[in-house]
Amino acid sequence: MKIGFIGTGVMGKAIAGHLLAAGHDVFVYNRTKSKTDTLVNAGAIWQDTPENVTEKSEIIFTMIGYPKDVEAVYFGENGIFKASVAGKLLIDMTTSTPTLAQKIAVSANKYDAEALDAPVSGGDIGAKNATLTVMAGGSEEAFNRAKPLFDLISKKAELHGAAGSGQHVKMANQIGIAGTMTAMSELMVYAKAANLDLKRVIETLSAGGAQTWSLSNYGPRILKSDYSPGFFVKHFIKDLGIALDEAEKMSIKLPATELAKALYDQLAEKGFEDAGTQSLIKLWWD
Amino acid sequence: MKIGFIGTGVMGKAIAGHLLAAGHDVFVYNRTKSKTDTLVNAGAIWQDTPENVTEKSEIIFTMIGYPKDVEAVYFGENGIFKASVAGKLLIDMTTSTPTLAQKIAVSANKYDAEALDAPVSGGDIGAKNATLTVMAGGSEEAFNRAKPLFDLISKKAELHGAAGSGQHVKMANQIGIAGTMTAMSELMVYAKAANLDLKRVIETLSAGGAQTWSLSNYGPRILKSDYSPGFFVKHFIKDLGIALDEAEKMSIKLPATELAKALYDQLAEKGFEDAGTQSLIKLWWD
Repeated sequence: MKIGFIGTGVMGKAIAGHLLAAGHDVFVYNRTKSKTDTLVNAGAIWQDTPENVTEKSEIIFTMIGYPKDVEAVYFGENGIFKASVAGKLLIDMTTSTPTLAQKIAVSANKYDAEALDAPVSGGDIGAKNATLTVMAGGSEEAFNRAKPLFDLISKKAELHGAAGSGQHVKMANQIGIAGTMTAMSELMVYAKAANLDLKRVIETLSAGGAQTWSLSNYGPRILKSDYSPGFFVKHFIKDLGIALDEAEKMSIKLPATELAKALYDQLAEKGFEDAGTQSLIKLWWD
Repeated sequence: MKIGFIGTGVMGKAIAGHLLAAGHDVFVYNRTKSKTDTLVNAGAIWQDTPENVTEKSEIIFTMIGYPKDVEAVYFGENGIFKASVAGKLLIDMTTSTPTLAQKIAVSANKYDAEALDAPVSGGDIGAKNATLTVMAGGSEEAFNRAKPLFDLISKKAELHGAAGSGQHVKMANQIGIAGTMTAMSELMVYAKAANLDLKRVIETLSAGGAQTWSLSNYGPRILKSDYSPGFFVKHFIKDLGIALDEAEKMSIKLPATELAKALYDQLAEKGFEDAGTQSLIKLWWD
C-alpha cells in the first residue's frame, strides 16, 4: 500500500520504519530533511511538502510536535488539504487537541476523505518495539481500514468513539501520569529526608497499594541520576496544558493536574525542558 | 509462645486470629470488649487492661486507631509500661507517628525491653489472607525475634532502619497512594465529561504508563458505585496529617500531598468519613 508519513522524529521514524519493513511504499516528509535520511536509505521516498506526500499516498500518517504544527501541516500552504484527498485516510498520531482532531475530521469529510485521531502511549521504546498503545477516535470504517497498519506498530489499538475521542483518552492518560509523577517524587523526597534506603522503599511500595508504573520504572532511574528523556518535560507540559484547556471547556476542575502542571512549569524554568519527566524530583534535590 | 494482642478491630482481629491458629497462647484486650468475642471463642484469653495483657505475655502487639490512643495504651493508666516489661518485645502495628515510635523505643530500652514499629499495608483483605506487607523499624535483634510471627501474617516483612523507620516507610506509602487517588479521580472525571467509555479507558490506561494499583483496583469498584471501605477516609486523613507533620519537621514541602489532604478533608466534611478512600470522586460526581 502507498503510505505517507509526515513527521519523522524519534517516534515517527520508528513507526514509519515498521510500515516500510512490512513492505509498504512509504512517502516521507519532515521539516528537518536530514531526519528522514535513515528511512530514505531503507527505501522510503522523500517528498518536499506534506501536499506532495498526500498526493502520492492512500493513507497518510502525521506525527508532529505541537498542535500549531499539526494545524499548519493539514491546513497551511502546501499542506495535506491542498492535495486531492478524496477516498484517502488521514491519521494524526500527534498528541494534540480534541478540538483540532474534530476540525480535521470535518474537513476530511467535506473532501470525501476519512480521518482518525490516533495518539499513542508507550514512548520511544514502545515505538521501537512496536508495542505502542493506540487510542483512536473516528468512524468504525476508518478504524477498520487503519487496523492492519496499527497492528504493525502496536500491541493494542482501540477505537474509543467519534473524532477527538482518541485525544481525550490520551489526555486522561496524561492526567493519570501527572499524579503518579508528583506522588513518586514526593514519596522519594520524604523517604530520603527520613534517611531510608530508597531502593528498598521502592521495592516495598511497589508490592502494595502505592504501586505505579512510574515508581517501578522511573524510581530506579532516579536512583542512578538518570534524567534522560523517555518523555520530554516540554512535551508533558504541552499535554497537560491541552488537558486543562479541555477540562475548562467541559467546566470541570482538576486541581491535582493543575498543581502538576505548575510544578512542571517551574521545572522548565529551572532549565529542565529537554530532560525526562522523572527530573521533576530536581525541584527538591540538587 | 505467650502473645499479647491489644486492639482487635477488623485488622487486629484477623492478625491475632492467625497467631492463635498457629498454636500460640494469645491474650487479648480491646476497648470495646465485644470485639474480642470471636477470638475468645476460638481460644484467646481476655484480659481487662493492656497492663494485664503485658504481664501475661512475652511479645505484645498493638493495633489501634489513632496515635493518641497508642500513647494511652503504652503510657497511660493500666498501660503497657505499668507492667513489668523487662525482656519483652513490644510491637506497634498501628500506623502512627515516627516520633511516638521513637518515644516507645526509648521507654522500652529504659526498662530492658525491646520495641518495633511495624505498620502494615494490604488492608483488611491482606490481614485476612495473611498477605500483608510489614514495614518495621527497630533493632535487628528485635526484628529477628518477631520475624517468625510476621511470617504468619504477611507475605513480606522487612526492617527498614532504627525505631520510627517503619512508620516513615508507611508514610512514604501513604504519600504515594494520595497521588494515585487524586490522579485516578481526575482522569475518570475527565473521561466521563468527555463521554468516553470508562471501563475501556481504565483497561487501556492500565496497560501503559498511567497504570496504578489504585486505578486497577478502585476504578472498577467506582464504576459499580461501590464506595464501601477497603480503607476508611477518616484513617487516610489521619495518615496524611502525620505525613505532612513529619515533612514539616524535616523542612520539606509536599504540595501534592497537601492538596490530597485538603481534598480528603472536604470529602469528610461532605459526610464521607466512614466511606472508602475511592469515594474521593464524590467531590465531582453526585
